[in-house]
Amino acid sequence: MQATKTQPARGMRDFLPADVRRREYVIGVIKEVYEHYGFEPLETPAVEDIETLMGKYGEEGNQLIFKILKRGVHAGTGEADLALRYDLTVPLARVVAEYRDQLPKFFKRYQIQPVWRADRPARGRFREFYQCDVDVLGSRSTVVEAEICAAASEVLTKLGFNDFTIRLNHRQVLGGVLQSAGVPSDKHNAALVALDKLDKIGRDGVAKELSDRGIDEESRNRLLDFFVELNSLDHAAELALGEDVDKKRDSLNAAVLGRLVEFVRDNEPGAKGIDDLRSIMKFAAASGIAQRIQIDPSLARGLSYYTGAIMEIGVKDLSGSLGGGGRYDNLVGMFLGQDVPACGFSLGLERIIVVMTEREMFSAKLLSSPADVMVTVWNEGAVSESVLLATELRAAGLRVDLYPEADKLAKQFKYAASRGIPFVALLGEDERSRGDVSIKDMRSGEQLSVKREAVATTLRESL
Amino acid sequence: MQATKTQPARGMRDFLPADVRRREYVIGVIKEVYEHYGFEPLETPAVEDIETLMGKYGEEGNQLIFKILKRGVHAGTGEADLALRYDLTVPLARVVAEYRDQLPKFFKRYQIQPVWRADRPARGRFREFYQCDVDVLGSRSTVVEAEICAAASEVLTKLGFNDFTIRLNHRQVLGGVLQSAGVPSDKHNAALVALDKLDKIGRDGVAKELSDRGIDEESRNRLLDFFVELNSLDHAAELALGEDVDKKRDSLNAAVLGRLVEFVRDNEPGAKGIDDLRSIMKFAAASGIAQRIQIDPSLARGLSYYTGAIMEIGVKDLSGSLGGGGRYDNLVGMFLGQDVPACGFSLGLERIIVVMTEREMFSAKLLSSPADVMVTVWNEGAVSESVLLATELRAAGLRVDLYPEADKLAKQFKYAASRGIPFVALLGEDERSRGDVSIKDMRSGEQLSVKREAVATTLRESL
Repeated sequence: MQATKTQPARGMRDFLPADVRRREYVIGVIKEVYEHYGFEPLETPAVEDIETLMGKYGEEGNQLIFKILKRGVHAGTGEADLALRYDLTVPLARVVAEYRDQLPKFFKRYQIQPVWRADRPARGRFREFYQCDVDVLGSRSTVVEAEICAAASEVLTKLGFNDFTIRLNHRQVLGGVLQSAGVPSDKHNAALVALDKLDKIGRDGVAKELSDRGIDEESRNRLLDFFVELNSLDHAAELALGEDVDKKRDSLNAAVLGRLVEFVRDNEPGAKGIDDLRSIMKFAAASGIAQRIQIDPSLARGLSYYTGAIMEIGVKDLSGSLGGGGRYDNLVGMFLGQDVPACGFSLGLERIIVVMTEREMFSAKLLSSPADVMVTVWNEGAVSESVLLATELRAAGLRVDLYPEADKLAKQFKYAASRGIPFVALLGEDERSRGDVSIKDMRSGEQLSVKREAVATTLRESL
Repeated sequence: MQATKTQPARGMRDFLPADVRRREYVIGVIKEVYEHYGFEPLETPAVEDIETLMGKYGEEGNQLIFKILKRGVHAGTGEADLALRYDLTVPLARVVAEYRDQLPKFFKRYQIQPVWRADRPARGRFREFYQCDVDVLGSRSTVVEAEICAAASEVLTKLGFNDFTIRLNHRQVLGGVLQSAGVPSDKHNAALVALDKLDKIGRDGVAKELSDRGIDEESRNRLLDFFVELNSLDHAAELALGEDVDKKRDSLNAAVLGRLVEFVRDNEPGAKGIDDLRSIMKFAAASGIAQRIQIDPSLARGLSYYTGAIMEIGVKDLSGSLGGGGRYDNLVGMFLGQDVPACGFSLGLERIIVVMTEREMFSAKLLSSPADVMVTVWNEGAVSESVLLATELRAAGLRVDLYPEADKLAKQFKYAASRGIPFVALLGEDERSRGDVSIKDMRSGEQLSVKREAVATTLRESL
């Protein structure tokens, strides 16, 4: 047979057992937490009709959608009628329209499935990757934002993160700030794109960009004065408090909200947005996560479809986020033909796994051992005895690998060692005549003889 | 916005929460059992290079592969460079070649992922469906066959099936029987296709088909005499023993093996196959599943790539199987360029779920309740109190839904009832002044007042 390339397709990944275990562990924690918050699982097909997806992600998105050729006699035309799922939000919108009569008034769903994008592959960017979305549909209450932040926060805590911060802002507050600074509505998005770079290119750099985008000097100065002042407030607090800054979050957030109120003044949507932020903070306090939240008036998050609160979770010394989301009241109803209030959060599963791996946050046990014990085979005539022992140990709840054939014992032990299996069970003639089993602890090298009926208990106690 | 079709694409399915829970329950049991047998999880990408898949499934398979259009400037040509995974075996073969140095000598993997086939959709046949494969690579020992049968058997038992039978046969025994009957090698496959219909079209029908395929009368009669005799042996046993037939499996299997030995006589591969069957039965006895296995010399299973034992799991009064597999020593090495001994089993996940649903084998609890308790909201001013209570109950391990906004209490109770949530927690002014919480059991309608610190315990005891 001709030599074929055996790597996975470009930008795609194989997950060998240790990879799968890591991923399943993280997904398991996420599911468990979301279930405890009353979220329910949803799954949609990988393949959607092409019309369902086209035009939903802008011109760039259209290019990045993997399109599937029509089958049969049409194949020759090059026509595509299906496409691979590009995100989990458009399928959710389709589900909301299709099953409107079966879904509860408040539809709280989580969905953890792969999506496909024909992006140019790069370090950490793949063409198949998991999205991990949680959304609450049907309520405009800020309880929803608080619950979503609390759930995401609990996920990260359960995974072992203790240094994360949820940055929180509000689309209408941003709008109010821009309006009060004198930026005309049609230049809001351009201004936000520039402001988003404040950390990277500094005040002068942003001022130049704002000017290039046609925003006048007075507005530029009002805007930059405001954001630079808030930034320095935050930096000063971090310098003064160090690790303890989170404990003072309450008063820092109160100070930021105070400055926002002053700045936004009588801009009505802006003032309403500030009320939302206050209310989210109140509920977050009841959820015990208030000190995790930093109100950050410069957070923008792309913006295109958010209509209310926006949030992003990050850890110190890591650029980029581990997740983000917000309220987007006009999107999920796209197929239904009516607005559906919605607020969602997407955890960056792939990034979380990368960071956890780099920080060695996965337990060694999770990664290394395919079984609790390996049962050896003494000789050709004793295979049944080994099958019997393996069966007994499995019935006692142990994960048991059975060496599949008669072989030199040294080779069998070496095999168990190479696989990181912590114990090996040996059933030689002596052992059988005494009704014993020899157990070797592969870590210490110790070997002891145990009564057959006590093997499972002994192993369980040593694991 | 124009009205778009909101059903899933043709032949694809959305899984609403209750569907996902059913599927995840079954998959969870399968994973747990396979892990206890020392199998490890593998995942491969949904998308493969088109050359990896084309030509591996015959001409019909080529037609049924979903092909993905090249991106960018090439899109216009209609050329496809990628394709959707068609099964889990070809990706396994690719993985075996690509990671040969990292994989253990005996690679025992399970893989539970969707595959896509552009089949004409029909009742119970979908274009996206899960395959659920377990394979042992690297050993020719019949311990492997026995362990695979034991694992599949334990999965079905754990799922609640108690009436399944594993039919077992052997490719070389089939070959030996045909050879001994005088059917020339080049007509073996044709003969088996005909014999496979014995149950449906009877002796005369099969005789006609064999004759049409150019098999002479003497061979036809020898073959049909043999299979009809074995069939009637089996039928007689079932008639005589009824439900107890499984308890007599040992002697029935011994009788069948005896007849095979007589018939196959000095055909060497056939005799070797019979030895394999004996040895599988011996190990199956040590695994405690011997009475589940019925040696069935007429079992054929498509045949194209099997080289040794073949098996199929079925339940009474259900045509078609719940899973099947066998030994296929020449396939998994296709990309490696050398034979890799392999034996695998594929559980029919979709079919198992259909049968379990029809037989009402899923517990009501699994299906109906998205949360253990719903916390109501007394009024606008008391939202934080409800958030706090929900947080406490979650910390105590309960699955808690929180009604997201202030609303008429009657509506909140109705909502909990419509969702099948068994308990509702109420925190009115009276309750708060007493430090109590009212708990309503939605099944009995009873309501009782519980000290706040005892709520979680009370709920857990009642669930």
